[in-house]
Amino acid sequence: MPTAHQARLRIPERARTSRIDYRVPFYDTDAMAVVHHANYVRYLELARVRFLAEHDEPYTRYVEQGYHVVVTRVDIQLKRATRFDETLSVICWLEWVRHASLGFGYQIRCGEELSALAATEHAVVNLSGRPVRMPDARRERLLALFSGE
Amino acid sequence: MPTAHQARLRIPERARTSRIDYRVPFYDTDAMAVVHHANYVRYLELARVRFLAEHDEPYTRYVEQGYHVVVTRVDIQLKRATRFDETLSVICWLEWVRHASLGFGYQIRCGEELSALAATEHAVVNLSGRPVRMPDARRERLLALFSGE
Amino acid sequence: MPTAHQARLRIPERARTSRIDYRVPFYDTDAMAVVHHANYVRYLELARVRFLAEHDEPYTRYVEQGYHVVVTRVDIQLKRATRFDETLSVICWLEWVRHASLGFGYQIRCGEELSALAATEHAVVNLSGRPVRMPDARRERLLALFSGE
Amino acid sequence: MPTAHQARLRIPERARTSRIDYRVPFYDTDAMAVVHHANYVRYLELARVRFLAEHDEPYTRYVEQGYHVVVTRVDIQLKRATRFDETLSVICWLEWVRHASLGFGYQIRCGEELSALAATEHAVVNLSGRPVRMPDARRERLLALFSGE
Repeated sequence: MPTAHQARLRIPERARTSRIDYRVPFYDTDAMAVVHHANYVRYLELARVRFLAEHDEPYTRYVEQGYHVVVTRVDIQLKRATRFDETLSVICWLEWVRHASLGFGYQIRCGEELSALAATEHAVVNLSGRPVRMPDARRERLLALFSGE
Repeated sequence: MPTAHQARLRIPERARTSRIDYRVPFYDTDAMAVVHHANYVRYLELARVRFLAEHDEPYTRYVEQGYHVVVTRVDIQLKRATRFDETLSVICWLEWVRHASLGFGYQIRCGEELSALAATEHAVVNLSGRPVRMPDARRERLLALFSGE
Repeated sequence: MPTAHQARLRIPERARTSRIDYRVPFYDTDAMAVVHHANYVRYLELARVRFLAEHDEPYTRYVEQGYHVVVTRVDIQLKRATRFDETLSVICWLEWVRHASLGFGYQIRCGEELSALAATEHAVVNLSGRPVRMPDARRERLLALFSGE
Repeated sequence: MPTAHQARLRIPERARTSRIDYRVPFYDTDAMAVVHHANYVRYLELARVRFLAEHDEPYTRYVEQGYHVVVTRVDIQLKRATRFDETLSVICWLEWVRHASLGFGYQIRCGEELSALAATEHAVVNLSGRPVRMPDARRERLLALFSGE
């Protein structure tokens, strides 16, 4: 397992992944005529929310059950600028799971080219924002989603 | 009194006003190298929040008392593009007050030039989002802030 | 024809329309747990860009030909709050076309409910931001898209 | 010198720093009633732009001279949630300078508490986005700003 926060190029072989496609809106560009870098952090959220909905439960269910999954770290490497109306694909997978925290890996691609690599870390908290252990059933479900590589 | 939503050039003579200065960050620009129009709607909020804090109560006090002041209409006319690092001044005043709603007027200036005119309308709601009459004391305090023009 | 900037409920009968669906991301919500009002202005852009691509030309073609279509006015009425993960539909049509300006109408719906009504006005400018008449061919193509109501 | 991208708690002793204060606007909050994490990446930009203006040259001068300083990596650790109307201070310093790239370090504080630690990496590019060596005069000016620790 890589150190928690390290982005990496290779998607772990047996990891479940989710993917969202995102067509760059004009409002995400900046005066360099490319996507402003802070917006990529939002795209990671779109893919992560999709991942939970596809492989675990919709995020709205987390909240109904009294949990939030807050971001405690984002490490993103930007490889290639993206322009208005290009379509990005964000691929997301689970990198690690502990009792009260978890980590995701990401690749952002634009066609055949790599746009960005990222890793995020998260704490599981209750609705007042206090860190809590996630229920065993959820943790086991999540552990099954990643490869153990 | 103009119709509720109509922006106007002249600040009512006896109205109390508030003003915020805002230096345009790079992240507010778009691929035309000017401020993206949706951001001006955010600048109105900055001025309105300042107005309430200066002339009535901080918005955090509204929330503590169980109220939100939600936006029900925004009408904004954009007169002049603004670029990175220019400083905008947003001037805000109260246009009208009813039992469960109120309206603000705005001018956005960049130096001597007019950048935008705007009007917003608001409903007073409780924390579940239901429209409610505001307490008489608050309404009277707000009524005293505008000129009756 | 309504006055240029007036939002209206009824979509003109013979107008061509375009529609985009938008699932509300977490990052569009605010501390009232609903979509922040400034974001709706962005959703209008998504629908307008789709309209031009479907009925006229992709906006990237406008830019290649030396034109931008800048926003000179936004009038939006918010009818109903929207929450994370709800899906909005934004329907857009052309309201009017002049030599150097045009106007769009919009409805934003969430399922069967009306979330917002809006109207926007635009100037056609060159890449330095100066207003210019649009080419006759484009203007005629655009005129054919609306009903004359 | 730490590896290029690593955030660190201690501000290098002899480094020049810049600081901006930022009062959290309502529009930066999300449905957890705290600042959405992607916004902190924008706050870093505010501090970095201030740093260049105070210690080197305004970023607008970079652009006039044909340069952009693009972001190639952001690593941010979030330590404490921040709420509407709290005031954040972002402190920024230069961590390292090479011929065509540079790195900044950041602390974000809310009163006495640490809100975030961050590091960013940047490439110097020309206005078409190609990496270029920065002029020796600029590089020497930048080198003088950091401590050599």
